[in-house]
Amino acid sequence: MSGKPKLYYCYGRGRMESIRWLLAVAGVEFEEEILETREQFEALLQGGALLFQQIPMVEIDGMKLVQTPAILQYIAAKYNLYGKDLKERALIDMYVGGTTDLMNPIMLYPFIAPELQEAHLNKIRQLAHNRYFPVYEKILREHGNMYLVGKWFTWADVHLLEAILMVEEKFADLMADFPLLRVRPLVVNKLTIK
Amino acid sequence: MSGKPKLYYCYGRGRMESIRWLLAVAGVEFEEEILETREQFEALLQGGALLFQQIPMVEIDGMKLVQTPAILQYIAAKYNLYGKDLKERALIDMYVGGTTDLMNPIMLYPFIAPELQEAHLNKIRQLAHNRYFPVYEKILREHGNMYLVGKWFTWADVHLLEAILMVEEKFADLMADFPLLRVRPLVVNKLTIK
Repeated sequence: MSGKPKLYYCYGRGRMESIRWLLAVAGVEFEEEILETREQFEALLQGGALLFQQIPMVEIDGMKLVQTPAILQYIAAKYNLYGKDLKERALIDMYVGGTTDLMNPIMLYPFIAPELQEAHLNKIRQLAHNRYFPVYEKILREHGNMYLVGKWFTWADVHLLEAILMVEEKFADLMADFPLLRVRPLVVNKLTIK
Repeated sequence: MSGKPKLYYCYGRGRMESIRWLLAVAGVEFEEEILETREQFEALLQGGALLFQQIPMVEIDGMKLVQTPAILQYIAAKYNLYGKDLKERALIDMYVGGTTDLMNPIMLYPFIAPELQEAHLNKIRQLAHNRYFPVYEKILREHGNMYLVGKWFTWADVHLLEAILMVEEKFADLMADFPLLRVRPLVVNKLTIK
């Protein structure tokens, strides 16, 4: 086994995508094992690698981590993307909680019955437009369009960027109401990673 | 304002209950504001106290924290219930993730339509019996029925205890298959809080 983290998931973005993003921002190379058959999943299960019979699973530092938040929190803390103290960490957890609540129904969309898809899309649009994006737009405005928390790039910035791209993919027109979020992918390139 | 944390939630256990447990175990006195009318909720909302228009909200250390995991993680870290290093913390996050996934459908139960309640209960029973409880029973057996993680009582132990009591309330007979979980409420009294 190499020293690189190894990611176990099925083909697709899903719950593993935020983990890939965070590792990429941390500058950590990783390997992936894409599970394509039921047998591959069963082999992991029988080997005891999946604590709660679920993926994503990430092998890292001798551990077999499951539960997406646990995995993300470990990576964020290890690679210095989790704030300078407990209060910054609490803000990061709040902001990541909001972007997670926005991304969850987008991730569910492909599994929604055709006759319910339109209502589901409308709900996502409302959540993005009326609940979550106004909060992040305001924070960035108050912080001079730099970091969401403190003086460095954190997990909260990574997660927000992913959420913006997911929403934009579904509702490109919606971004016009959030000028700072709309240009965020360009701004992020210029920010400093500690 | 006193120095005590102040909890804002509606009447009931719900998502605030784990926060009450954790503060109680940490030995922290707290105050509660029970929201009984739409007007009380609106007043908080208009005052900007609810970042994502949701409760639970906890005022603590000059912050207005929302998002249940963010609140719990702040309390666990501040009061030394979150392990001695990043690896212990990752285990705690995994175990708390499992108990959360078990408790969520139990919390939803009162909101399930009557004709779907039996199927929902069966699903909870399956989750407890086949997915989650065997994992915790095994960990406790391997650790000599003491702490889930490391050498001290942690948030993972608090959360498991809450999950056991919630499941026992619905399916008392199920506990017979998990002898260490069944006596856990008695054992916990004898454990040491750092």
